[in-house]
Amino acid sequence: MSTAKAAVLVGYNQPLEIREYPIQTALSPGEALIRVEMAGICGTDVHLWKGELPVPLPVILGHESVGVIERLGEGLIRDWRGQPVSVGDRVTWASSIVCGECFYCRVKRQPTRCIARKAYGISYSANDAPHLRGGYAERILLRAGSSIFRLPDSLPAAAVVGAGCALTTAIHGIERCPVEWGDTVVVQGTGPVGLASLAVARQSGASRIIVIGGPPHRLELAHRFGADVAIDFSNTTIEDRRKQVMAETGGYGADVVIEAVGIPAAVNEGIELPRDGGKFLVLGQYANAGNIEFNPHIITRKQLEVRGSWGFEPRHVDAALRLLELGNWAELFAGQITHRFSLQEANVALDTVKRWQSGKAVITPHA
Amino acid sequence: MSTAKAAVLVGYNQPLEIREYPIQTALSPGEALIRVEMAGICGTDVHLWKGELPVPLPVILGHESVGVIERLGEGLIRDWRGQPVSVGDRVTWASSIVCGECFYCRVKRQPTRCIARKAYGISYSANDAPHLRGGYAERILLRAGSSIFRLPDSLPAAAVVGAGCALTTAIHGIERCPVEWGDTVVVQGTGPVGLASLAVARQSGASRIIVIGGPPHRLELAHRFGADVAIDFSNTTIEDRRKQVMAETGGYGADVVIEAVGIPAAVNEGIELPRDGGKFLVLGQYANAGNIEFNPHIITRKQLEVRGSWGFEPRHVDAALRLLELGNWAELFAGQITHRFSLQEANVALDTVKRWQSGKAVITPHA
Amino acid sequence: MSTAKAAVLVGYNQPLEIREYPIQTALSPGEALIRVEMAGICGTDVHLWKGELPVPLPVILGHESVGVIERLGEGLIRDWRGQPVSVGDRVTWASSIVCGECFYCRVKRQPTRCIARKAYGISYSANDAPHLRGGYAERILLRAGSSIFRLPDSLPAAAVVGAGCALTTAIHGIERCPVEWGDTVVVQGTGPVGLASLAVARQSGASRIIVIGGPPHRLELAHRFGADVAIDFSNTTIEDRRKQVMAETGGYGADVVIEAVGIPAAVNEGIELPRDGGKFLVLGQYANAGNIEFNPHIITRKQLEVRGSWGFEPRHVDAALRLLELGNWAELFAGQITHRFSLQEANVALDTVKRWQSGKAVITPHA
Amino acid sequence: MSTAKAAVLVGYNQPLEIREYPIQTALSPGEALIRVEMAGICGTDVHLWKGELPVPLPVILGHESVGVIERLGEGLIRDWRGQPVSVGDRVTWASSIVCGECFYCRVKRQPTRCIARKAYGISYSANDAPHLRGGYAERILLRAGSSIFRLPDSLPAAAVVGAGCALTTAIHGIERCPVEWGDTVVVQGTGPVGLASLAVARQSGASRIIVIGGPPHRLELAHRFGADVAIDFSNTTIEDRRKQVMAETGGYGADVVIEAVGIPAAVNEGIELPRDGGKFLVLGQYANAGNIEFNPHIITRKQLEVRGSWGFEPRHVDAALRLLELGNWAELFAGQITHRFSLQEANVALDTVKRWQSGKAVITPHA
Repeated sequence: MSTAKAAVLVGYNQPLEIREYPIQTALSPGEALIRVEMAGICGTDVHLWKGELPVPLPVILGHESVGVIERLGEGLIRDWRGQPVSVGDRVTWASSIVCGECFYCRVKRQPTRCIARKAYGISYSANDAPHLRGGYAERILLRAGSSIFRLPDSLPAAAVVGAGCALTTAIHGIERCPVEWGDTVVVQGTGPVGLASLAVARQSGASRIIVIGGPPHRLELAHRFGADVAIDFSNTTIEDRRKQVMAETGGYGADVVIEAVGIPAAVNEGIELPRDGGKFLVLGQYANAGNIEFNPHIITRKQLEVRGSWGFEPRHVDAALRLLELGNWAELFAGQITHRFSLQEANVALDTVKRWQSGKAVITPHA
Repeated sequence: MSTAKAAVLVGYNQPLEIREYPIQTALSPGEALIRVEMAGICGTDVHLWKGELPVPLPVILGHESVGVIERLGEGLIRDWRGQPVSVGDRVTWASSIVCGECFYCRVKRQPTRCIARKAYGISYSANDAPHLRGGYAERILLRAGSSIFRLPDSLPAAAVVGAGCALTTAIHGIERCPVEWGDTVVVQGTGPVGLASLAVARQSGASRIIVIGGPPHRLELAHRFGADVAIDFSNTTIEDRRKQVMAETGGYGADVVIEAVGIPAAVNEGIELPRDGGKFLVLGQYANAGNIEFNPHIITRKQLEVRGSWGFEPRHVDAALRLLELGNWAELFAGQITHRFSLQEANVALDTVKRWQSGKAVITPHA
Repeated sequence: MSTAKAAVLVGYNQPLEIREYPIQTALSPGEALIRVEMAGICGTDVHLWKGELPVPLPVILGHESVGVIERLGEGLIRDWRGQPVSVGDRVTWASSIVCGECFYCRVKRQPTRCIARKAYGISYSANDAPHLRGGYAERILLRAGSSIFRLPDSLPAAAVVGAGCALTTAIHGIERCPVEWGDTVVVQGTGPVGLASLAVARQSGASRIIVIGGPPHRLELAHRFGADVAIDFSNTTIEDRRKQVMAETGGYGADVVIEAVGIPAAVNEGIELPRDGGKFLVLGQYANAGNIEFNPHIITRKQLEVRGSWGFEPRHVDAALRLLELGNWAELFAGQITHRFSLQEANVALDTVKRWQSGKAVITPHA
Repeated sequence: MSTAKAAVLVGYNQPLEIREYPIQTALSPGEALIRVEMAGICGTDVHLWKGELPVPLPVILGHESVGVIERLGEGLIRDWRGQPVSVGDRVTWASSIVCGECFYCRVKRQPTRCIARKAYGISYSANDAPHLRGGYAERILLRAGSSIFRLPDSLPAAAVVGAGCALTTAIHGIERCPVEWGDTVVVQGTGPVGLASLAVARQSGASRIIVIGGPPHRLELAHRFGADVAIDFSNTTIEDRRKQVMAETGGYGADVVIEAVGIPAAVNEGIELPRDGGKFLVLGQYANAGNIEFNPHIITRKQLEVRGSWGFEPRHVDAALRLLELGNWAELFAGQITHRFSLQEANVALDTVKRWQSGKAVITPHA
């Protein structure tokens, strides 16, 4: 096979097109050619599709994927963890590559804010060779310097893609805004980032986790992931929810509140939910969705700690894969996948995610 | 002398009245009667005067004072630090007393958020015996359980009152949002809290401190306190100031930004000034002065740490007094006092502070 | 009933004596008279019995107990958590009272190092009225200022005493030397502090916990508490154990090692077990048991964090009771109790603990 | 010039030999050829000379140097900070290169413990081309991937080499064991690492710094660096010194104690000097100099934090250079240099350092 099909975003709010690209046969040192087994549809893909983040169209979407190594460039003999890799191994990879040399990479050790960061499925034009830089495709060609992780046989692709970049994002966020054992936690949002945050909070020993979200099929997922209380966003007011959180936390509010909604108004709701001296992680405001009316007096008066977190680093992929080997997380995250689509159905897939109908939707290009 | 005069807030936006109260002669255990030597006019007093914080009128204002012990209740033989105290000693005291028993005092160790906290000069009605619970008075009667600090002879009242609650507030704030040696720091505001924050940042080893404030006589004070750059708020735009901060910080923004302005819009300006992954201390929003248009995406994208801090604890008074014994801080804080008034001139004093004319204004009831 | 029997340590290495003391009928404000339901035999009691810590003989031992309120002094209407208390309530209490005023209580917020700390069952001579200051007794009289915790009906005395001061000690220790989710952990020792450390590490989300201890019945307990690997101390060498820990941790050593043995040589063994940059909590060296040959180069070369922790604060009792309400910890800690004795059998009880025969031994004075 | 002279360690405890090596004219991408201006004699060089650390003889010593770029390999156009570099620029460089790929580099972010770390002046055999891998030489050839720092014109070589690896070591150590403003600090040792620790503690805002060391000319240096108290090691006992530290710290001990002596017994002395709950940085035990009799009970009872720190990272060189631009540190560190030698006098230089006769000794190969 000398070409690979891919689902390509050619214009905002337009259907993805299936295009065919040549597969580069001669790999440069450090590169890897991967046969994509499964690619997740991330909420960010919907934002990209709507044109809410600037990308160099046309773009092959897909930044959370699992595949099988088909060809390895010279010198690529170990994965990020130092394990040997060879053709035929199942792998996943960090979506981003950073420069390792800028102020943020070096001096401040905040590589997620690298000034030259590029992400598969987001930052590469499919017009430019080698074209295949996104997961919605039969093949993806990984650059030298990619952070590749060989998967243990016991870990199915569905668990890894079901966790997706939501889990790595949640791990990074909670690293920056830690949940300590015994903490009471509120998670705003029951999308993939909300459920992943719930999982990390649970694994961190939270004593009581209150989730605010919907629709019902996602609240049910939240219960399965270990939420103690799940409040339906659709049939309650902000004040109802605030009162319920207070009732569940002795009248004071939670130790940690994690915003994983992505709608700016969620920040107004969320900042009222920590106890005084508590923490508020603003994790979901990845896209710029505009302003809110906000009272900064709350931050001083409640002496809050408000933290932001952007994306993740390869070491958070390592941590995510380790979490999937604990308890029954692999099963739970795999179970989040409710919809599987072919490459040709990529538009239906995006639309399913856009309309919140799925737990998690994936594309299986070769199924 | 069996009565003491005091300047009393009897109605919002009305002149303070001079009233005379009986001095309680029989002290209960742990109480202390203090002859007030000097009382600072704090910006909060102006807020109280305007009715922006609810208080039980009539109130004797004054929560940052120095005096001499005139009488001690049984059992009060040591100050907060364990040093012996006796009649004739010069002392200062923490403005607040907390319950020591509530959720915030005990479980969360955040006594500044004690649910039963009461402050001299703020929380006591002068109608209720023993009346004398504020610093704008010839005498103040301290409750049992007050945190009293004997002053070393070398430390003049002017240094302690010149530092005032601004310094303890800054120390608490920077404890919650630390400045590390070598950090670049922006301080928004050149009022007493701004200057005190500058002092603490300098003592913490900041490499470069950029101050934004005014009027010119306060920018000059800022330079004297060690600001490397002082930007005049009055003849620059937000964008001018942002550009200058970027130019002073290699184009990235400061490691730590400290808001000590008190106007909500300062939060909008300030949140753009830290580098990605930097810290932003919202210290000045003590009063509820309303909403701003705010974009929460900034917090996520810049992965900021935003911290609030409310008031201070007795241990921060201890720390403030220790700071005043280092370098030339005592001299600098004492030098901040530009206006001294009698008790009868309390209204002029308040007005001077309200109109930003003073470095720091004080009342000396017996001068 | 006007007198209460107690088991009293009258001389080191001598049998405890049963003595009878008058029960004070008129309580001072804040005091509480408790009918002891169950008192744990702590390893520290064995140390006291052997004379390894200085105490004012004669002493009624017992510092981890549960009882029922029989009488309350004036003003004692709420427990430490602010819940109402009344006669008939089941309670436990922190073993120590601190001064709240010294350098460690105030300035450094390390009340466990209070210079005037006194502990029930340890610091009070039974010769001094009101005599009943230890748990090995039918009644105990708690001083004003004691930290009392009303127990929920769902929490049996066996769970609270089964956890005992081992759990509060472990919680404080791990607060000072945190286990983060995903960490690999080694616990040295399978006595009560070792098992409690294992519980807290598990609750904190440790990914893999390796326990070193014995005898076999305690290793079995360790497995029940969630140890992934339990190494028998008795049939392995130090080098065997080190190799096994390395094998379980990818060859690097654990992220956190917790010493809960109490024998100085355990520190030599333990300090080799963290990975470079890892943490080592020296929790078990409560008694001064002499010197070891020690190479400090290890600390520099492995750039370790070595932490000590002494006793616990009332807030750790609060945390312990909260942990007992999570998962199946109450059941597990209650299940640790293998031996129950009458007051008259106190010597047998001590001996059982001394000879490591029990999971946990308790005295039930009224059973 | 086609060859460069170097002072080479050919056998332990034998005189260094001057040898001549060819200068590689064709540079590979990323390499840099440096004309050495000044090379510091570090205490570690004395340890290497004595054979206390294993090195691949023969070795050109010298791991703290300043020089001028003579030739640059392709692609090397920016220094570690991103500043442009070109032939003729004055530079310094981090002594070590790490793999960036191992468990410590990646997962644990502790690159100083990289399993493949190599250091100029230590890890390279001079027999292997390109030979010139140490600072005691007319030229040094830096590998691709070296962390090079262009020096500002205002910063003399004497300041950079005077600070040397002592300052970067101290910065890393104090990063791991922070000094907060107002802390009382004890520094054990007045060698280069002790003085550098004193400088960093001072810059961090320590309120009182007590130094223990000698001989007198170094205590004088300590005073110049800002020590409040300097205790002469030679005419006092351990108990004298302990008492004096207690007297200077209110009877409790210091908040932070920094061991920078290198003799194991210093750890015994030092661990008694922090207050309870204080910190003890074991920074000087770089070489394995054997065991001490040590009582681990101290760690538990005093609930200490004991930290180790090994070497430094390039970002600590960045921080050191920034510190040298603050206050009068450049002048102070430059002033530490008391002895300058030619390459031919390298043995005298080593001997001077060995016998503690110098502040700091350097080699200036072209002077």
